[in-house]
Amino acid sequence: MNIATVIGIVFGIAILGFATYLSTDSAGVFINFPGMAIVLGGTLASTFICFPLKEVMRVFSTFLIALKREELPTDHYIEEIVAIAREASSRGKIHLETTLPGIENEFLQNAIQMLVDGYSREEIKEILETRIEQTYQQELSSAGIYRTMAKLAPAYGIIGTLIGLIGMMQSMSVGLGNLGAHMAVALTTTLYGILLSNLIFLPIAIKVEKRIEERVILMCVIRDGTLFIKDKTPAAIVLDKLKAYLPPRRWASIDRSEATGDEEA
Amino acid sequence: MNIATVIGIVFGIAILGFATYLSTDSAGVFINFPGMAIVLGGTLASTFICFPLKEVMRVFSTFLIALKREELPTDHYIEEIVAIAREASSRGKIHLETTLPGIENEFLQNAIQMLVDGYSREEIKEILETRIEQTYQQELSSAGIYRTMAKLAPAYGIIGTLIGLIGMMQSMSVGLGNLGAHMAVALTTTLYGILLSNLIFLPIAIKVEKRIEERVILMCVIRDGTLFIKDKTPAAIVLDKLKAYLPPRRWASIDRSEATGDEEA
Amino acid sequence: MNIATVIGIVFGIAILGFATYLSTDSAGVFINFPGMAIVLGGTLASTFICFPLKEVMRVFSTFLIALKREELPTDHYIEEIVAIAREASSRGKIHLETTLPGIENEFLQNAIQMLVDGYSREEIKEILETRIEQTYQQELSSAGIYRTMAKLAPAYGIIGTLIGLIGMMQSMSVGLGNLGAHMAVALTTTLYGILLSNLIFLPIAIKVEKRIEERVILMCVIRDGTLFIKDKTPAAIVLDKLKAYLPPRRWASIDRSEATGDEEA
Amino acid sequence: MNIATVIGIVFGIAILGFATYLSTDSAGVFINFPGMAIVLGGTLASTFICFPLKEVMRVFSTFLIALKREELPTDHYIEEIVAIAREASSRGKIHLETTLPGIENEFLQNAIQMLVDGYSREEIKEILETRIEQTYQQELSSAGIYRTMAKLAPAYGIIGTLIGLIGMMQSMSVGLGNLGAHMAVALTTTLYGILLSNLIFLPIAIKVEKRIEERVILMCVIRDGTLFIKDKTPAAIVLDKLKAYLPPRRWASIDRSEATGDEEA
Amino acid sequence: MNIATVIGIVFGIAILGFATYLSTDSAGVFINFPGMAIVLGGTLASTFICFPLKEVMRVFSTFLIALKREELPTDHYIEEIVAIAREASSRGKIHLETTLPGIENEFLQNAIQMLVDGYSREEIKEILETRIEQTYQQELSSAGIYRTMAKLAPAYGIIGTLIGLIGMMQSMSVGLGNLGAHMAVALTTTLYGILLSNLIFLPIAIKVEKRIEERVILMCVIRDGTLFIKDKTPAAIVLDKLKAYLPPRRWASIDRSEATGDEEA
Repeated sequence: MNIATVIGIVFGIAILGFATYLSTDSAGVFINFPGMAIVLGGTLASTFICFPLKEVMRVFSTFLIALKREELPTDHYIEEIVAIAREASSRGKIHLETTLPGIENEFLQNAIQMLVDGYSREEIKEILETRIEQTYQQELSSAGIYRTMAKLAPAYGIIGTLIGLIGMMQSMSVGLGNLGAHMAVALTTTLYGILLSNLIFLPIAIKVEKRIEERVILMCVIRDGTLFIKDKTPAAIVLDKLKAYLPPRRWASIDRSEATGDEEA
Repeated sequence: MNIATVIGIVFGIAILGFATYLSTDSAGVFINFPGMAIVLGGTLASTFICFPLKEVMRVFSTFLIALKREELPTDHYIEEIVAIAREASSRGKIHLETTLPGIENEFLQNAIQMLVDGYSREEIKEILETRIEQTYQQELSSAGIYRTMAKLAPAYGIIGTLIGLIGMMQSMSVGLGNLGAHMAVALTTTLYGILLSNLIFLPIAIKVEKRIEERVILMCVIRDGTLFIKDKTPAAIVLDKLKAYLPPRRWASIDRSEATGDEEA
Repeated sequence: MNIATVIGIVFGIAILGFATYLSTDSAGVFINFPGMAIVLGGTLASTFICFPLKEVMRVFSTFLIALKREELPTDHYIEEIVAIAREASSRGKIHLETTLPGIENEFLQNAIQMLVDGYSREEIKEILETRIEQTYQQELSSAGIYRTMAKLAPAYGIIGTLIGLIGMMQSMSVGLGNLGAHMAVALTTTLYGILLSNLIFLPIAIKVEKRIEERVILMCVIRDGTLFIKDKTPAAIVLDKLKAYLPPRRWASIDRSEATGDEEA
Repeated sequence: MNIATVIGIVFGIAILGFATYLSTDSAGVFINFPGMAIVLGGTLASTFICFPLKEVMRVFSTFLIALKREELPTDHYIEEIVAIAREASSRGKIHLETTLPGIENEFLQNAIQMLVDGYSREEIKEILETRIEQTYQQELSSAGIYRTMAKLAPAYGIIGTLIGLIGMMQSMSVGLGNLGAHMAVALTTTLYGILLSNLIFLPIAIKVEKRIEERVILMCVIRDGTLFIKDKTPAAIVLDKLKAYLPPRRWASIDRSEATGDEEA
Repeated sequence: MNIATVIGIVFGIAILGFATYLSTDSAGVFINFPGMAIVLGGTLASTFICFPLKEVMRVFSTFLIALKREELPTDHYIEEIVAIAREASSRGKIHLETTLPGIENEFLQNAIQMLVDGYSREEIKEILETRIEQTYQQELSSAGIYRTMAKLAPAYGIIGTLIGLIGMMQSMSVGLGNLGAHMAVALTTTLYGILLSNLIFLPIAIKVEKRIEERVILMCVIRDGTLFIKDKTPAAIVLDKLKAYLPPRRWASIDRSEATGDEEA
């Protein structure tokens, strides 16, 4: 479960709600349904023009799935690849076929499948690298949807405020007290736009981009690992080489479980 | 038909129109013809200074054509290339000449033509890569026209508002009620500028840029495919290699139609 | 003659002038000489600090020259290079010396001179690539002068407005009517700054940058062509390879004139 | 001890405090606890959504550690590597094992360990380069947390001001004097946001980024040094090559201590 | 002497001073010492947090030195290198040692020293390229200090204005006339910030960056020249190759002095 995100959202809403409650005695002025319609509706409308319908839908569902799982366990995959390397050197590559159904990660499964099918080193490298590059480009362009929304929301906030101000000014004779109330309502859309952008869209964009980076690193680990197995590199050296993808402070956990693995072997 | 764009435009205009209708009882204030002339006219004037006349014209027509067709079917071309590869290996490269007129895509047709003409691998690679690079640069610089307009429109919106404000202030003795009405009119140009930029120019720029990326990927698929045919790679491996350009969720459709293709063969 | 630029400038000034005329009955308020001095003078002053005097001067004259000529005719040079290639293969490289004085483009002339002088392929490639890279860097850094001015002008516009506002506020007791007139004058400098930036400096910067890109592509065409002649590539293949630098819609004109050329030969 | 940072913080607070003291007789208006809660709380909330909890925590502690130590002494490491190179050439690589426990820097220790373990040149190069690349990416993405906060703080400052203004306007009948006091309170959050961003978050982001660059250069020095030792390059040439990573004005210190080292040897 | 910079500074101050003099009858309002303290002091404080004390100091002195000298004479160095190449080919590399003390440029001297010391081509190339890369990175990061200050100054200008406004509003009952004077004072800090940024910091940043580019090109010329001498390239070809680093309009001067040099030889 993704604790930081939950803390962030709950804490952010609580802080802002409390500060709003303190600053006024009639909090109702902050709720402006036509204003919300302008900001949310306008942002969505522009987003639908920018991106194909399917992609917008897919990005939303991707995000929900991504939220559930914490950081991809690169350590885990390094151990899995080292185990496969050990098996490949002791039993031969053809026996890898039996391990195939047990591999959860689709990219690793495809890579091992190519080993079993006897593709050449160059072919494996080329195919895996094209896939990494394409995945990176496609995901990044999907993540761009959130970045685009983070840019559009404040613009529609200002659009809403301008519409409110123009409407108000055109009938300015209403008196100063009323003027204030109208202006307050007009300003709420700017508030919505900036808030949506900075509390929701921008943080999600950054989070999704970090996920993509982690996923690409994992794919690089799998690519390198597969090529090491193809080259019949001893499992100990495979481990040393793949460890370079992790920060040193996370080496301990792998070394420990590897030691255990060696005892088992 | 491009559903997302239509939804976006209709939805955006409806939402903003409705919100405007709610915020004032005389919606006429939002229609300011001299203001529209400043924003649209100024933006177009600056655009004509930046870019050659022909290119501006071409970009507009390109966009209309692009709007009609949905996403370029990379899957379709992969199947077409695999079919050509199969034919080339069974019947020889010279028979490819008969398939040439049936190829709709100009870039693929040129590539196959070079195969038939017996160009060397290096020559084919060099020519196709120069064309991909040049196409990418030229299209991107055309798409820059929309990005430029998205930047210019809000600037001319502010210019219009400043002209309105300066004119108004110079004769400020007109009384407060009238002042409001004048200010409302002055602010409409800022509204036009931000709206044009965020509902029209920026979304179109993003859409056109995404189209270009898709087109370049398609050209890379065709380049790789042509080189695989030149290398006499078996059709099954060609399929495996080209599939790497697609996200895994779209592999199913190709595999299915390929299976059918195999039965036919 | 560069029609788009002329249309842009005339149209832009006409639209803005007409809108200004509509918005006020005393257009004189828009003419503020001290304000113009601040915006233009300040922008020029900062520009002279940024860039050496010679370069600023050269950039202005370069621009005037560039304005006169329309788009560099890459097609024309491709034909010229193919003609040279044909001659080189039929008469030998030494006879190229006679064609040297007829070549207008300095870069092409230098490249052919190196062919005549018997430089090695590697040397020709190295020298031409250094020149392309250096030309690109130098021109781009010159074009940066316009980008810098496009950034400075609005800043000096705001500086002028602040000077006006501070002066006005300090003697605020003058009465409300007068206040408006003073504020109108103060705002004109912001108007000048934004207008200069968006109607003049930014469009020119973009135009100059596009010219540089076209020139670099032309230099790449000449580099490749020279190396093809050095490699004794047949003229027909040279044409095919260089055509890749043009968008397909411009191939027709070359093919047609080439066909004529073949008849002549 | 990091003198510049301490000077900066003390000086910055003193200057602003003094200027604030001069500008008003009741400085209490600048202290607005709900406003602080909005800016700090909102910024932290968005940050927690963007980044995993562990990483945010780690970045704060990393920063405190980094503050304590001044600039990483690249000179020192060059001398250490040259000393190791001298020993390796005089006593053989296997004797390097005895020097291992004396090496403080973890990255250098790992690199020398690989030399002792007899890894091939290619393997050492590959592993060290993957680690440098990964360290750079990971650290830079951590430093991005400060950049993100520098962007979020002013946005929440404006959010706070908007909340204050809307609350105030809604009850505008309170009278003009009171209005000023309310507005003053509302504006404090914008002040907090800009101040936090420009005095704390942005400077820290820049400082951390510079530290990362220095660390990567140090890692490149260690990588090159290790490969030179593998290649049995004479110690004098190793020194010459590694000196290229330092600006000439810092060569003197190394040359001096090297001269001493030679005497000792 | 750097004429453009002097013209720029004198002209900029004169224009702004004159415009200010015209806009008000009591220019004293533009002099606000606490405001200057906020903008200058705050900007310096943040800069000291960002960068080590030594680097800030060094950058200021570097700038003063750089101001004195006009553009680095790349032409001059090309001639010097060609002269060295001529001598090396006629008298042998060992005689280069006698020319060493006469070389003013430290980088060129080091490069020739390596030739004399008999380093291999690969070693010379590697060392010089590391130095160029490192010099570029270090200088650019120093130049970043000015860019940072250009960003900070307007922010502290707004901070000063906010402090002034908040102080003023809190005691708004003072009457409208006084209000104007207070507001005028508050706005001066924004004026200081924008002016400092656009007349001083940004232009200096751009100037320093251009100097760095020129210096790197000069270092590339020296690197290439040294390698040509190592390869025993004839002096005439060395001249041809190095000329590619200059724009054609500056070739004439070299060719002329070379011709003279040939007569002397």
